[in-house]
Amino acid sequence: MKAFLNGKFVEKNEKLITLENRGLTFGDGLFEVLRVKDGHIFFFEDHLLRMKSSASFFGIPFPYSLDEIKNRAHELISLNRINDGELYIELTRGVDTNREHRYPPRSTQTTFFMLAIPLREINPENWKRGAAVFSFPDLRHKLCEHKTINLLPNVMAKNFAYERGGYEALMYRENSKGKYITEGGSSNYFLVKNCTVITPEIDNILPGITRSKVIKLLKESGIEVVERRVYLEEFLSADEVFLVSTVSMVMPVRRIDDREFKAPGEITLKAMELYRDFMDKEKERY
Amino acid sequence: MKAFLNGKFVEKNEKLITLENRGLTFGDGLFEVLRVKDGHIFFFEDHLLRMKSSASFFGIPFPYSLDEIKNRAHELISLNRINDGELYIELTRGVDTNREHRYPPRSTQTTFFMLAIPLREINPENWKRGAAVFSFPDLRHKLCEHKTINLLPNVMAKNFAYERGGYEALMYRENSKGKYITEGGSSNYFLVKNCTVITPEIDNILPGITRSKVIKLLKESGIEVVERRVYLEEFLSADEVFLVSTVSMVMPVRRIDDREFKAPGEITLKAMELYRDFMDKEKERY
Repeated sequence: MKAFLNGKFVEKNEKLITLENRGLTFGDGLFEVLRVKDGHIFFFEDHLLRMKSSASFFGIPFPYSLDEIKNRAHELISLNRINDGELYIELTRGVDTNREHRYPPRSTQTTFFMLAIPLREINPENWKRGAAVFSFPDLRHKLCEHKTINLLPNVMAKNFAYERGGYEALMYRENSKGKYITEGGSSNYFLVKNCTVITPEIDNILPGITRSKVIKLLKESGIEVVERRVYLEEFLSADEVFLVSTVSMVMPVRRIDDREFKAPGEITLKAMELYRDFMDKEKERY
Repeated sequence: MKAFLNGKFVEKNEKLITLENRGLTFGDGLFEVLRVKDGHIFFFEDHLLRMKSSASFFGIPFPYSLDEIKNRAHELISLNRINDGELYIELTRGVDTNREHRYPPRSTQTTFFMLAIPLREINPENWKRGAAVFSFPDLRHKLCEHKTINLLPNVMAKNFAYERGGYEALMYRENSKGKYITEGGSSNYFLVKNCTVITPEIDNILPGITRSKVIKLLKESGIEVVERRVYLEEFLSADEVFLVSTVSMVMPVRRIDDREFKAPGEITLKAMELYRDFMDKEKERY
């Protein structure tokens, strides 16, 4: 498997960065994961514009044009013969041999790399019968509207679910009214109650690309979608629950902790179908 | 400058890790910075026992005995001819080519590396006349009692202070009573009021090695030290303020935002002296 690193395609034994890279010593970087199928990269502009906007927020120079990245990404996908896979993109603030927290001069070369790998293995039963998810406290920072590589709390949450035979974590924060849901370790959540779809508002959670597409598709099909604070109790008493992400697409949830749901429910099936059709159309368009 | 990486001493052009290292893709790692002088590594056991305890918390296997690390660290310091410097140690959960959040099998080789570099340049005026610090919101996660590499909020905070000509950030969280101080981007803070020393309690802040030494030394010298929640207002109306860290040791603060202080104050000078003597004694002991 080759990678693209700082302007060049590199072989397996050259996929290397120095120990003093700020991505490794400070978590000083951003990433995106994009879905690749039959030579198409889905929602490329959405992902890259989000990364570019976050890079600007953190003062990290963005090194290439979107066109250039897209061309190189397609070359990499082709070189690695990826038919159904993931494109991973990471941007860090480059190398700092002094290891000082403060931003180095803007002239410092950033580190930009892309990996193109086969789609991770996901048990297809998760789509057919629904996934099991487990609630876990959201231990993250206040930068969750950006896709930073500061992911240790996400790692802990997903591992917690995985150890219990689950697919994803359902993370919550607490206020005086109780536990409210934020998102998964790498997914956004939706519930259905009385034919209305409800999903946590963007308040220190990631504005997911799949999330925004699914909201738009549901609304266009005449289904009411509400974005607001949502409590764990509401999820536990929902008619249906589903999660969405680039890799999971729309996936029904059959279980939260000890509570079981009918899965997939009717509106979940509708969302799955709408999203699948939307992806098919996007692929045809290019 | 050589480094120690996964059991070997490596040259400059071999100080490399793969792009798929979980430290780089998930911030899935821990670090320590130790002070080195005249062949002595200060408080080695304190630092390494903290790292080992956090590794256990996060389920990251700890690959070497403390004695082995100490021996290798001394070799590295000698190879790099570091007289007055910093020993940087990092441990990550190793390489994961699938990029899946959940912990890989415990048999996965962790990544352990050490850098030995000259002491960063610090303007000596900061010790003589005090440092300027700037308040900044604490945007960090809930894992701040561990020294993880999820440092982007620290990077932002210190950069904010640096851009204003300051030395450090004074980070705060907020509750219904107002802004309370947590710590700096890489320091702990103390204030002096009516001859009592007050410092933020360990509540999702790092239990700093220098912090604990300074508290002990002050108490032994008969000065009252209180660890509790401390509000920004109390810092602004303090008689003296100082910060401590491995690299800054005890450093007086002459300014917080627009508020100026007499610096160094009497008790700050006492703390500086006590800590300097303590370091001298520790160096002689070994």
